[in-house]
Amino acid sequence: MSPTPVALAELIAALGGDLLGEPDIRIARIAPLDEAGADAISFLANPRYQAQLATTGAGCVIVAPALAEAAAARGAAIVTPDPYLYFARLTQWWAARVRPRAVAGVHPSAIVSPDAKLGQGVEIGPLAVIEAGAVIGDHARIGAHCVIERDAVVGDQTRLAPRVVLGHGCRIGRRGIVHSGVVIGADGFGFAPSKNGYVKIEQLGAVAIGDDVEIGANTCIDRGALSDTVIEDGVKLDNQIQIAHNVHIGRNTAMAGCAAVAGSTRIGANCTIGGAANIVGHLTIVDGVHISAATTVTRSISAPGVYSGPYPFEENSSWQKNAATLRQLSTLRERVRDLEKK
Amino acid sequence: MSPTPVALAELIAALGGDLLGEPDIRIARIAPLDEAGADAISFLANPRYQAQLATTGAGCVIVAPALAEAAAARGAAIVTPDPYLYFARLTQWWAARVRPRAVAGVHPSAIVSPDAKLGQGVEIGPLAVIEAGAVIGDHARIGAHCVIERDAVVGDQTRLAPRVVLGHGCRIGRRGIVHSGVVIGADGFGFAPSKNGYVKIEQLGAVAIGDDVEIGANTCIDRGALSDTVIEDGVKLDNQIQIAHNVHIGRNTAMAGCAAVAGSTRIGANCTIGGAANIVGHLTIVDGVHISAATTVTRSISAPGVYSGPYPFEENSSWQKNAATLRQLSTLRERVRDLEKK
Amino acid sequence: MSPTPVALAELIAALGGDLLGEPDIRIARIAPLDEAGADAISFLANPRYQAQLATTGAGCVIVAPALAEAAAARGAAIVTPDPYLYFARLTQWWAARVRPRAVAGVHPSAIVSPDAKLGQGVEIGPLAVIEAGAVIGDHARIGAHCVIERDAVVGDQTRLAPRVVLGHGCRIGRRGIVHSGVVIGADGFGFAPSKNGYVKIEQLGAVAIGDDVEIGANTCIDRGALSDTVIEDGVKLDNQIQIAHNVHIGRNTAMAGCAAVAGSTRIGANCTIGGAANIVGHLTIVDGVHISAATTVTRSISAPGVYSGPYPFEENSSWQKNAATLRQLSTLRERVRDLEKK
Repeated sequence: MSPTPVALAELIAALGGDLLGEPDIRIARIAPLDEAGADAISFLANPRYQAQLATTGAGCVIVAPALAEAAAARGAAIVTPDPYLYFARLTQWWAARVRPRAVAGVHPSAIVSPDAKLGQGVEIGPLAVIEAGAVIGDHARIGAHCVIERDAVVGDQTRLAPRVVLGHGCRIGRRGIVHSGVVIGADGFGFAPSKNGYVKIEQLGAVAIGDDVEIGANTCIDRGALSDTVIEDGVKLDNQIQIAHNVHIGRNTAMAGCAAVAGSTRIGANCTIGGAANIVGHLTIVDGVHISAATTVTRSISAPGVYSGPYPFEENSSWQKNAATLRQLSTLRERVRDLEKK
Repeated sequence: MSPTPVALAELIAALGGDLLGEPDIRIARIAPLDEAGADAISFLANPRYQAQLATTGAGCVIVAPALAEAAAARGAAIVTPDPYLYFARLTQWWAARVRPRAVAGVHPSAIVSPDAKLGQGVEIGPLAVIEAGAVIGDHARIGAHCVIERDAVVGDQTRLAPRVVLGHGCRIGRRGIVHSGVVIGADGFGFAPSKNGYVKIEQLGAVAIGDDVEIGANTCIDRGALSDTVIEDGVKLDNQIQIAHNVHIGRNTAMAGCAAVAGSTRIGANCTIGGAANIVGHLTIVDGVHISAATTVTRSISAPGVYSGPYPFEENSSWQKNAATLRQLSTLRERVRDLEKK
Repeated sequence: MSPTPVALAELIAALGGDLLGEPDIRIARIAPLDEAGADAISFLANPRYQAQLATTGAGCVIVAPALAEAAAARGAAIVTPDPYLYFARLTQWWAARVRPRAVAGVHPSAIVSPDAKLGQGVEIGPLAVIEAGAVIGDHARIGAHCVIERDAVVGDQTRLAPRVVLGHGCRIGRRGIVHSGVVIGADGFGFAPSKNGYVKIEQLGAVAIGDDVEIGANTCIDRGALSDTVIEDGVKLDNQIQIAHNVHIGRNTAMAGCAAVAGSTRIGANCTIGGAANIVGHLTIVDGVHISAATTVTRSISAPGVYSGPYPFEENSSWQKNAATLRQLSTLRERVRDLEKK
């Protein structure tokens, strides 16, 4: 985290952008505008924070062309059409500088089946288990304590943090990132009722995950009952999300922490699902739908837009009064109707 | 997943049912009606899908007696009183055909205390840890990276997926299935406030789980404070469920993903708890109660029935108008009362 | 769990309190008033249970001075100003008697980098992984299958249950307790949108956790984007909690199971957050705020107090009627306004 400072010239050479100011200014860290000192580079992406441009101590600020003059008036600036995207690329470049590189090879404590297939430049961490028939793509990194079950597939350059389970026959594509505690391919929740209690429906499908997918810590994606659960390319899932069997999530959809999707629901592409939102089963949600945090979605959504449903919170005594009235709400409507008739 | 096709005659011999059609038709997969081709067997359990009977390409359809004629008119059919239950049993039979059998024995990398007791035909996976005093029943399967702490008990034929923690002194009965990431027997959340901050109440109970219980991925069941947390026979828990200390869940109750039950609440038998439902602590819920998804249960329930409480979701601009009114709801009631008085 | 019974005299010698009754009464367990027999010690902390004092079979009851007489009338009693706190300390003393002591040393199956630094009396469990640069404080206990990544720090006497991940550069202070499945230091959820999908913002901060913090099973605390996510001294987190990047939680705040806090939100000291409550991002909540279970907090809170927001649950048919009205609530208000004008 405290690497050798880097000259702006080197940074520009790697990432592009127009530099206003001295190319030999050296940067030791990336920081928000209000915390940045002379050794830090910062960025201004949200116009709401524009006032901070005048007060920040940052050694360099990444700005859009419209703010180039204002930024340069106070010190060095990098001008780029999309400062937030530039910032994202800067963090990637920075992380590559400061983090240890992958070390290709299989840790001697890992247990790798002779019937697994490992690509070139693969790194297998300590105590990982790779079962027969598994395929690990080129330059993939499998963290400590991961379990890759039989016939599972990890795509090229995909990185699994320590302690991920990829169930038998499940696949994840290229350039994926899977965080610790993720369980891909546990059984979907399916039972037939009988006189003697529930009878398990064995889950015969798998999980198919596309390229460029990131999956947050302790998230679960269940295998399908008959066909596969599907996560398309570019999907981003935060922590502790629950994806039930046979859910289908379209390309580039992002879901925040603790969201949950029940069985067989189909979510379109380019959606955003807020934190702790719940979507019941067997629904269809079209492309471009945005669900607010903590919303419970109980019916299909056929038009793009923003949908909400959490109960508005308030100070407890007000809430108790309103909640009590809520229990009599349909009665209240009847009373208004009666009044209107008079 | 692509086993040798099986003749209907063999399937009938194993599972029963009345076959209408050719016994030597060969089946290569199980599929839903609308995805089934000539090499697939499908089923019709929900009358809502009856129209699909005319259009499915399935080689064989499992139906109830009332639909035998209609099913046979289009191809082979298996007639059985409960097609969904038959389907469940078919999936079990199918899974037994296609999945590798358990291989009795202790993987050389597992760390098994000489003071643990292993039954006959037990399979202990790679890198599992079995502590002193633990008892593993006959034909139980302990997955890779599981930790069975001291004095814990796993019943006969119970199967733990990779990476399950069964805490010290906790017990699970026979024929159970526990998925990856499950934590049974972490400490319940109990503290006494003091001038110097919270003082931990050590959790001295354990977790007692009956027979035929299934527990989904990353679900947690905490140990009791003084006495045990209890999960009765036949309970089915989906993924990422939280069961707090001293909860008691009655026989054959099923809970969907992300549900949570706070401390000391007692839930009856044959209940269903919808996904992401929350039940606060110290309540009693009788047998036969059904809680809708995302409901927050804040008081005891003394009669069987269906109970709901999620906020109805809607398009955001409507929701914002209604939510704003909601904050003034008790005032609105007052205004109606005043109008009525006039 | 079934240790040698202990005389009240010994217990008083260890924990203090005034004994009314025979010092040689022997106690074999701790039990609630309504389950306690003559071999059990119980406590009365909540006046609501005072009636049980007359009927309990407990061999000894811990009570406040006001109830000393009533308690002594029925058998032995320990009188102390705060019976619940006394009970908490009793459970700690009891656990120390009945549970195996830590055994200092590194299990031969653990994989400890020669560049890690282990304090005195450290216990490292089977198959744990300790990477280079990690620091494990004196008398810390690292459970089986834990992964302590490079440069992470575990404070003195902190105890990690089996299967905890402490990410690179993350720190936890002294006397902490971390339960199984916890993931500290996974990446926060940050992306810049681009024409080609989301571009990852590498998370360059870490997680800084104070002293005396307890973290429940399967809880996740993400690393910060630029600066650290911070959990102050004395914080208690229950199971399956999600703490997003750059959240700051103040001293002695307690959060119940399944609560979730979105990115950059700042929660004060001495707050309580109910189970399954959700707090959206970029808010500030002052000290001394109490959030009810299942509340969704959507704006900052600037005054101490109790805040609520779950939807009141009810029997399904009533709920459906009220929910239908709820969708027309702002219209209903308009109608009342019109009536008032007449």
